[in-house]
Amino acid sequence: MLIGKVVGSVVATRKDEKLENRKLLVVQVHDQHDQPKDQYVVAVDAVGAGHGDMVLYATGSSARQTALTENRPCDAVIMAIVDSWDLGGANVYEKWS
Amino acid sequence: MLIGKVVGSVVATRKDEKLENRKLLVVQVHDQHDQPKDQYVVAVDAVGAGHGDMVLYATGSSARQTALTENRPCDAVIMAIVDSWDLGGANVYEKWS
Amino acid sequence: MLIGKVVGSVVATRKDEKLENRKLLVVQVHDQHDQPKDQYVVAVDAVGAGHGDMVLYATGSSARQTALTENRPCDAVIMAIVDSWDLGGANVYEKWS
Amino acid sequence: MLIGKVVGSVVATRKDEKLENRKLLVVQVHDQHDQPKDQYVVAVDAVGAGHGDMVLYATGSSARQTALTENRPCDAVIMAIVDSWDLGGANVYEKWS
Amino acid sequence: MLIGKVVGSVVATRKDEKLENRKLLVVQVHDQHDQPKDQYVVAVDAVGAGHGDMVLYATGSSARQTALTENRPCDAVIMAIVDSWDLGGANVYEKWS
Repeated sequence: MLIGKVVGSVVATRKDEKLENRKLLVVQVHDQHDQPKDQYVVAVDAVGAGHGDMVLYATGSSARQTALTENRPCDAVIMAIVDSWDLGGANVYEKWS
Repeated sequence: MLIGKVVGSVVATRKDEKLENRKLLVVQVHDQHDQPKDQYVVAVDAVGAGHGDMVLYATGSSARQTALTENRPCDAVIMAIVDSWDLGGANVYEKWS
Repeated sequence: MLIGKVVGSVVATRKDEKLENRKLLVVQVHDQHDQPKDQYVVAVDAVGAGHGDMVLYATGSSARQTALTENRPCDAVIMAIVDSWDLGGANVYEKWS
Repeated sequence: MLIGKVVGSVVATRKDEKLENRKLLVVQVHDQHDQPKDQYVVAVDAVGAGHGDMVLYATGSSARQTALTENRPCDAVIMAIVDSWDLGGANVYEKWS
Repeated sequence: MLIGKVVGSVVATRKDEKLENRKLLVVQVHDQHDQPKDQYVVAVDAVGAGHGDMVLYATGSSARQTALTENRPCDAVIMAIVDSWDLGGANVYEKWS
């Protein structure tokens, strides 16, 4: 998984029927020091993430292992909302700070 | 998934029989700000996309989760036509503008 | 899928038994403008491709969806020989020109 | 698999239910000479790795082949703690040195 | 698949039980001209490769399609030892030369 920030959303009326009612979020990938990387992904939201949330997303076939994405043409899923992480014992990000 | 623009198509008469009658489109990958990236993919079209459409494509085994691509040697599928997306609340792309 | 050119072949006598009698071709990846990229792949040939042919190859589990590669330790397969492709309505490559 | 160093951990209260009680570790990827690369991954720990340990991690569907990760939306797993490795006969890393 | 050279091995006593007795080799990836690339992988050996051998390795779920790696948390497998390869009709590498 990689860490990312929810920065937007995509509207797509015409899509594979198995993706109806799935929320498609634009995730800006961050590095382990919480700096944005030159990389993004559009992921299905499986945990009720909102704008600005730091999240974890999984890709590939693992992105289809949630109830919302099973057997669907989806290669990226937000499967966790990050509360905090640390590096070398020092806090890098704290949601509620 | 990543966002891309349909910029061309590929003709291939001699191909694996499971890919007969599948439309193969050249997709120029765009970044989240709608700028073209130095990356492309040839994807099977599962949603009737046309030249110039902004689309979402899925890769890997997830590309085989549509009725048109199931069990086929296809590692990229266009599974949505993008109407619009936003970043930080500001509209980036609007199909009908 | 990506577009590539068949530029060579690999001989490997000692290999997993499930790969016996499979032709292993070296494919130079090309970009959508038909320029060679700094990337290659060794792929199993499922369509009778020959030296100099422009081809499409699929990777990952999708590479195992042909009769020749099913259940085999193969992560790249040539599944189409390209006749032509266009970008923005202009022909980029034409096999028989 | 790639070699990495456990440098931190992620706390995520709200996550897919299938990831409850899974330890999420931040792994700094190292190259074969034991130099850190500009790459990281957040992986589920399947072997009881601790801070500072050098580990091997597997990605993609292979990350779901441990008892702790089976059928879960997890695309990276720590499946081994590295004791040592050598290059060209010379020891590069030795855990207990 | 990509071509690589076996340059080392990894010792890991504590690992997922399904990887017991599997040989873990460090493979330096080479390009099609036999030049080393800035890329490596740790792969399970399924063909009895030795130090200095040029090999082919497969990644992802395809890495689990050998008798030694089936259903195991392994995302890279050496599935062939390269005898030779050519580019444009000219020999690039010959094991027994």
